[in-house]
Amino acid sequence: MQLYSYFRSSAAYRVRIALNIKGLDYEYLPVHLLRSGGEQLSADYRKLHPDALVPTFVDGDAVLQQSLAIVEYLEETHPEPPLLPRAPLDRAYVRAVAMQIACEIHPLDNLRVLRYLVHELGVSDEARNRWYRHWIESGFASLEARLALDSRTGTCVFGDAPTLADACLVPQVFNANRFGIDLTPYPTIRRINDYASSLDAFVRAAPGAQPDAE
Amino acid sequence: MQLYSYFRSSAAYRVRIALNIKGLDYEYLPVHLLRSGGEQLSADYRKLHPDALVPTFVDGDAVLQQSLAIVEYLEETHPEPPLLPRAPLDRAYVRAVAMQIACEIHPLDNLRVLRYLVHELGVSDEARNRWYRHWIESGFASLEARLALDSRTGTCVFGDAPTLADACLVPQVFNANRFGIDLTPYPTIRRINDYASSLDAFVRAAPGAQPDAE
Repeated sequence: MQLYSYFRSSAAYRVRIALNIKGLDYEYLPVHLLRSGGEQLSADYRKLHPDALVPTFVDGDAVLQQSLAIVEYLEETHPEPPLLPRAPLDRAYVRAVAMQIACEIHPLDNLRVLRYLVHELGVSDEARNRWYRHWIESGFASLEARLALDSRTGTCVFGDAPTLADACLVPQVFNANRFGIDLTPYPTIRRINDYASSLDAFVRAAPGAQPDAE
Repeated sequence: MQLYSYFRSSAAYRVRIALNIKGLDYEYLPVHLLRSGGEQLSADYRKLHPDALVPTFVDGDAVLQQSLAIVEYLEETHPEPPLLPRAPLDRAYVRAVAMQIACEIHPLDNLRVLRYLVHELGVSDEARNRWYRHWIESGFASLEARLALDSRTGTCVFGDAPTLADACLVPQVFNANRFGIDLTPYPTIRRINDYASSLDAFVRAAPGAQPDAE
């Protein structure tokens, strides 16, 4: 197994967490998103991932894209320990939390989007930073409301063992912290992040622990 | 079963397609995204969906959000006809195509995002429209590359029966057409869309066929 990754990519971070929880060894292949105009844009990398995004996951001859699709694949091929609960309603809940982060927050703060704002729309750095904060803060506000009210919330998003939802939450909180966003209004998110990010699988998946960390 | 929907919401459109393919009856509950300052922003609706987005799906006492999580739930609780292939690698492929649309294209062209561009960043209507086109065109370019090359492409994204991927592709093409985007550069996407959108389950899910269509 091989993972094309960038230490700071939160989509790659999700997959690293899942691989570690499953206890799967993999080769780390760094793709530097900023160096040489973006290594992800090279013709060779685009053969693996037409969208020129990280991560790309390779299992034998198979080449997989999209972090949540990769995690679902790992869940189906290596079911233990599980990253999704058993009951369909609970699975839907965990997936919805994961997708709220992966579909509603993260895509708006992606590198290529921030670049488009500045280079194509002529947005100032200050307004770009406001944009970044806005999508995290509005997304975290509704995520906090959800987690604070739902009886399934435990030390993790769903009960006391990490799932796909925690594998999305921790990287998004990492981004928020890196950007200096005040997390005081989101005590449940903070509490879950503090717990989950201290688990060995998460510690080893953290950006600072990757071979390409700067 | 009930679906809180807006006729033009492509996330709701995906779920309508899935419900129709599964042959499931449901009550259609319209949420007008533009009327009264946005009915999705009401306190009552936010109790169902803290993010104030459509769709919300109700099955008995359970309230589910996020279109792809809802479709996975329908797949697990009503497996026939399937919306995902059997083999894990093929499932990962179909999910990756679906997520390329749901995570890389659609979130950037959401109503609330377009509004933020205009109202918060002061972007002109022309630049906002360029933004809209850009994310569809760049996303369709890589999706076309993927579909044109993959041996699994048939009359549908995966073989000859519609899956989760087609349930995402057709609504995204609908948006592109509504916006007058030239689809000539994407012959495989066009061909699949022409076929899938002619199927009864898709015809009945189309925006124009909904009770709140304008």
